[in-house]
Amino acid sequence: MRQFVVLGHDAPTTPDFALDDLAGAAGRLDVLCRCVNSAFFLSHAIREDVRAHLVLADSFTVTFEGRDLRRLNPDERSTAALIRNALERREDAIGHQPVESSPGVSIRRRGFEATLDALDGTLIHLHEDGTPVVDVEPPADPVFVLSDHHDFTSDETDLLTDRADARVRLGPQALHADHAITVAHNYLDTEGFRSY
Amino acid sequence: MRQFVVLGHDAPTTPDFALDDLAGAAGRLDVLCRCVNSAFFLSHAIREDVRAHLVLADSFTVTFEGRDLRRLNPDERSTAALIRNALERREDAIGHQPVESSPGVSIRRRGFEATLDALDGTLIHLHEDGTPVVDVEPPADPVFVLSDHHDFTSDETDLLTDRADARVRLGPQALHADHAITVAHNYLDTEGFRSY
Repeated sequence: MRQFVVLGHDAPTTPDFALDDLAGAAGRLDVLCRCVNSAFFLSHAIREDVRAHLVLADSFTVTFEGRDLRRLNPDERSTAALIRNALERREDAIGHQPVESSPGVSIRRRGFEATLDALDGTLIHLHEDGTPVVDVEPPADPVFVLSDHHDFTSDETDLLTDRADARVRLGPQALHADHAITVAHNYLDTEGFRSY
Repeated sequence: MRQFVVLGHDAPTTPDFALDDLAGAAGRLDVLCRCVNSAFFLSHAIREDVRAHLVLADSFTVTFEGRDLRRLNPDERSTAALIRNALERREDAIGHQPVESSPGVSIRRRGFEATLDALDGTLIHLHEDGTPVVDVEPPADPVFVLSDHHDFTSDETDLLTDRADARVRLGPQALHADHAITVAHNYLDTEGFRSY
């Protein structure tokens, strides 16, 4: 199982945003949609053994479960509609119980720290000062933590410094979160068949 | 210089498409927009030494020139607007002369074969039966050729078989075109500083 946690600092926590302005009024939801795309799509298939968690403004977490996904399409707009559907069910998410809003998509009332608490696996902090990925033994169940268009806040960095099992960099260039997911997959596809 | 040629088989050749339906009525223009994103964006920068050519239905080619790009944003919708602006200038593209529609974006009346004829560099056909990229010496000026959500047609494959300098695969999984661009960049960033 490969997991990705993506922090959406400005992401909406209510469903009243327009699909026509994802990069503006919807708080750069376009970034999170591309991360979902990178996490799941192969040329003619979905990566079933993947789970992606979008942490929306440290309030709600929308989880995509590869094994159960049915209506995911590659474009940003349709993925944003799935996130909006999840947010329409936010009032039904009581305590830490998830609510499934469409096949393979669920929402929980849970911020970043509680999301990390709940995940099993080897926590990997992607960081430009980390160990080059080619020098790291691919873990069996990696959990990659990424940030949207903003850097991690100092509190988030402190939490990751405390919790992460490894700090890794994917290459000499700092990448967008969705590109980092694609590169991480390729690295594991090519080098690390342990996780499959 | 790294170049990418992406074939948009169903892409529009007129500007009368809606930005709200890129994955539908606009002939999967969302795929081409994500390819532009992958070709150019770094975390807080544009890759200047990159050129991307979108071949629209074998009729027009819209070229993005990293060095000159000014108004490129990462989301699909705004990139589609740049392509639409280029198509609005299609009547001004006479012969093979380019017309610049916005800084770093130009349109030419040119299909796939003529685009290949015009490019300098080492032509790389990305193909699932190709040589693993890790076994290939990174070329100085690679030109990667990719297809959208459709496979290459038999005519396109024949042309590539005839013209390509190498047939390469990026990993054990068949990838979407935009993910393939990201992986190709990472490979060259990590292994192949010859091109920079």
